[in-house]
Amino acid sequence: MDDIQSHFVKNILAGAPAGLKECGLSSAPANIALCKYWGKRDPVLNLPVNSSLSISLGHLGTRTEVRSLAVEQTFQSAHGQAGMPAPHENPDLVYLNGQLQPSDSSFVKRTCSFLNLFRSKLGDVKFEVRTENTIPTAAGLASSASGFAALVMALDNMAGWGLDKRRLSMLARLGSGSAARSVYDGFVQWQAGTHSDGSDSFAEPLPDIWPEFRIGVLEISDTPKSVGSRDGMNRTVETSELYKIWPQQAATDLETIRTAIAARDFLLLGKTAERNALAMHATMLAAWPPLLYLQPETIAQIHRVQQVRAGGLGVYLTIDAGPNIKLLFLEENETAVSAVFPGLQIIKPFG
Amino acid sequence: MDDIQSHFVKNILAGAPAGLKECGLSSAPANIALCKYWGKRDPVLNLPVNSSLSISLGHLGTRTEVRSLAVEQTFQSAHGQAGMPAPHENPDLVYLNGQLQPSDSSFVKRTCSFLNLFRSKLGDVKFEVRTENTIPTAAGLASSASGFAALVMALDNMAGWGLDKRRLSMLARLGSGSAARSVYDGFVQWQAGTHSDGSDSFAEPLPDIWPEFRIGVLEISDTPKSVGSRDGMNRTVETSELYKIWPQQAATDLETIRTAIAARDFLLLGKTAERNALAMHATMLAAWPPLLYLQPETIAQIHRVQQVRAGGLGVYLTIDAGPNIKLLFLEENETAVSAVFPGLQIIKPFG
Repeated sequence: MDDIQSHFVKNILAGAPAGLKECGLSSAPANIALCKYWGKRDPVLNLPVNSSLSISLGHLGTRTEVRSLAVEQTFQSAHGQAGMPAPHENPDLVYLNGQLQPSDSSFVKRTCSFLNLFRSKLGDVKFEVRTENTIPTAAGLASSASGFAALVMALDNMAGWGLDKRRLSMLARLGSGSAARSVYDGFVQWQAGTHSDGSDSFAEPLPDIWPEFRIGVLEISDTPKSVGSRDGMNRTVETSELYKIWPQQAATDLETIRTAIAARDFLLLGKTAERNALAMHATMLAAWPPLLYLQPETIAQIHRVQQVRAGGLGVYLTIDAGPNIKLLFLEENETAVSAVFPGLQIIKPFG
Repeated sequence: MDDIQSHFVKNILAGAPAGLKECGLSSAPANIALCKYWGKRDPVLNLPVNSSLSISLGHLGTRTEVRSLAVEQTFQSAHGQAGMPAPHENPDLVYLNGQLQPSDSSFVKRTCSFLNLFRSKLGDVKFEVRTENTIPTAAGLASSASGFAALVMALDNMAGWGLDKRRLSMLARLGSGSAARSVYDGFVQWQAGTHSDGSDSFAEPLPDIWPEFRIGVLEISDTPKSVGSRDGMNRTVETSELYKIWPQQAATDLETIRTAIAARDFLLLGKTAERNALAMHATMLAAWPPLLYLQPETIAQIHRVQQVRAGGLGVYLTIDAGPNIKLLFLEENETAVSAVFPGLQIIKPFG
């Protein structure tokens, strides 16, 4: 698995100049999919079954600083003693919001596995990674997409590769599929691609700017999911009969959403995004064992959205692989939506 | 519409002897589908897209007495005055659990529409119908299946037609699709059929007797559904992309459930019935507008069932087009299941 990924990275970086600085810095926005990514056609290269389309969240996301260290420095600075790490230990120092993370945490493990892909190109260095999430911690928004996008762009900044966004998108994809979309602002489409080598599966931005577009985050629960997205996708693809229709529905929904964005047709956009998200959850409900990320409060809020929409308010919802609801609406309805959903965190994707 | 149904009834009754008594009596069990009926291929003749399989609930159901009246009697007995009903009024007197029902209630309207199909054969008489539901009123179990099955069998009893169960099943089907299954006890399969005239769409009993089989009813809500089953089916068939897979999944599930019943393989039966019910709800979730019969408490109980099953308890669930959950388990786990779900109403389908 690592070999295939390393080979992919080596190809991307072939010909990239070496202009290594001591330190690299970048930031990337979180994103919310309006047409969801659900199902991998290749789990190693993180190639999706279907193309997806998202909206990036502006300044909400991740800011990452990466620094190359000599091996001796690594343990000295962290533990006040010199020496090589034990073979099974992760060699890098990973800070999240200012706190050094335990080397056996899944956050550090995922970060180090990702960095491993770049070590040979960078001369087998060890890294100090300082990650700051600017997503409100209680927002119920995934930070892995912005996290891997910011990390790969910080590496590019440090190493002086000068990769184009398309290549950065493909590298970020290896860390987390949806990270492929977080290298851009605004509306972003991640083309599934058809090549088995992953060379045509990257994101591209749409030119559309829609300043009135709003997202409202309704946090239902911040407890970690009992089934991660990767396992959830695999279970769905392997056991859900209804999933067989998903790729085709997602393709249609994506085109409809593109049309709606181009025409600034909010009702069409909202309806299609909500249908798409609920269809994704439907494929999970039909898996075995049933995959139910939705919590009782999620259902209560879905009913509520239906109710206020029946009353004429232009508000739609989307739900990722978790219990939290993101509302979609326009600036003109901000006051009305806030009144119905107290405590809503409102995001302006276009600043 | 009435013409097509009347023609169907006329064909079924062709050659049935007339041995009219003043009064007919019958009873029929409620039933719970293990492989659900969802979607009509013909809305007038109530022909289903897919075959379904149910378990009848023994003595829980409907007991119906039907009596033919002269028109004058109808209004005299009910209202203490003679005279013909106004053209738009329903001519029959319909009692439910001892109470005369308002003639503009949907219960009376549905009953009278059904009786209309038999009026010409029976000499244009008016009826007094006395229906007693032996389903606990708060059980969250549909009574239309047992209601129409009992009514058609009471008519047969009154008129002396001596119809076989297959014909009774087809007549009951016109009142409510699932009523086709309520003319039998035990496990029952309703064959979808392929003929456009509805002549091969009827239920038949399976020979299997499984005394240890238990059903537990978890009532979540007894408020009427905001979208009836008929409208829910139509919306799903017309707007849900995922529904396209449903007929094929239902066919496979039905065969698996038959195999499981024949082998007394409870785990296979439970798993397949639960998958089937959740797949049906998944097709609804993917409809537009989304069709969500599930309530917050339904979701809480689904999570609970998953949790106790993960702990080793052999309990599965099924959910009809409503919020209530029916648990499936064996006698040996009755105590354990009752401990986890207090207030459970336990039904022994085989007495």
